[in-house]
Amino acid sequence: MPKTKKNNEENAMGSGQLDGGLQIKGRLWVEYEGQTYLSWGRVTLLERIGEHGSVSAAAKSMKMSFSHAWHLIEDMNTLAPEPLVEKQTGGRHGGGAWLTDAGKLAVKNFWQLVDKFQNWIKHEQF
Amino acid sequence: MPKTKKNNEENAMGSGQLDGGLQIKGRLWVEYEGQTYLSWGRVTLLERIGEHGSVSAAAKSMKMSFSHAWHLIEDMNTLAPEPLVEKQTGGRHGGGAWLTDAGKLAVKNFWQLVDKFQNWIKHEQF
Repeated sequence: MPKTKKNNEENAMGSGQLDGGLQIKGRLWVEYEGQTYLSWGRVTLLERIGEHGSVSAAAKSMKMSFSHAWHLIEDMNTLAPEPLVEKQTGGRHGGGAWLTDAGKLAVKNFWQLVDKFQNWIKHEQF
Repeated sequence: MPKTKKNNEENAMGSGQLDGGLQIKGRLWVEYEGQTYLSWGRVTLLERIGEHGSVSAAAKSMKMSFSHAWHLIEDMNTLAPEPLVEKQTGGRHGGGAWLTDAGKLAVKNFWQLVDKFQNWIKHEQF
């Protein structure tokens, strides 16, 4: 059963309720040498691959096109010190995919960062 | 002389340099009842109005269309407890515009929040 983190707002990954209807919102991502490496969407995709065991099922669960998901994975694998996702091609259903230890760690570290961000934003005033 | 804060990255308003070329990046904005109220672009527009004394000059300095700037100002004025910008229409050049005390405070508070965010992000690890 997918247990991926839900993003409860369209764009925000952090949100703090303030008095009088005001809310501070925020997003975080990680770049490598100026290129997007990990973001909410990318890390959710990684997580879904871990849950579904294939790129196509992971993409489908996010209503993302297979080619976009494939592109994102190639991009992350290239930017990471070692690949985050391994894929086995072949067969009518396009083979399987799984997270490497580096991939699992990237997911864990990113959500930890998001948790800390959410905690920070929750305590901020405006 | 414009002394508006510069956003040194395309999308990010916060940035922390980590080892090995990784950088945490982030954006913040403030919503009122689920609608964008203040963001980097909106607050920069406010600041430019304060500097230039007109909506058209402020918009031009940001390479923003006049109509888009006008729309953003109307939106902020509507969402704010009291208007942030006052405008005097008329004349060939479309009159002048200036920040109210509430507008100056919104700018100050937003940049303070951004400063705290930048400080937070700078000390985070990934």
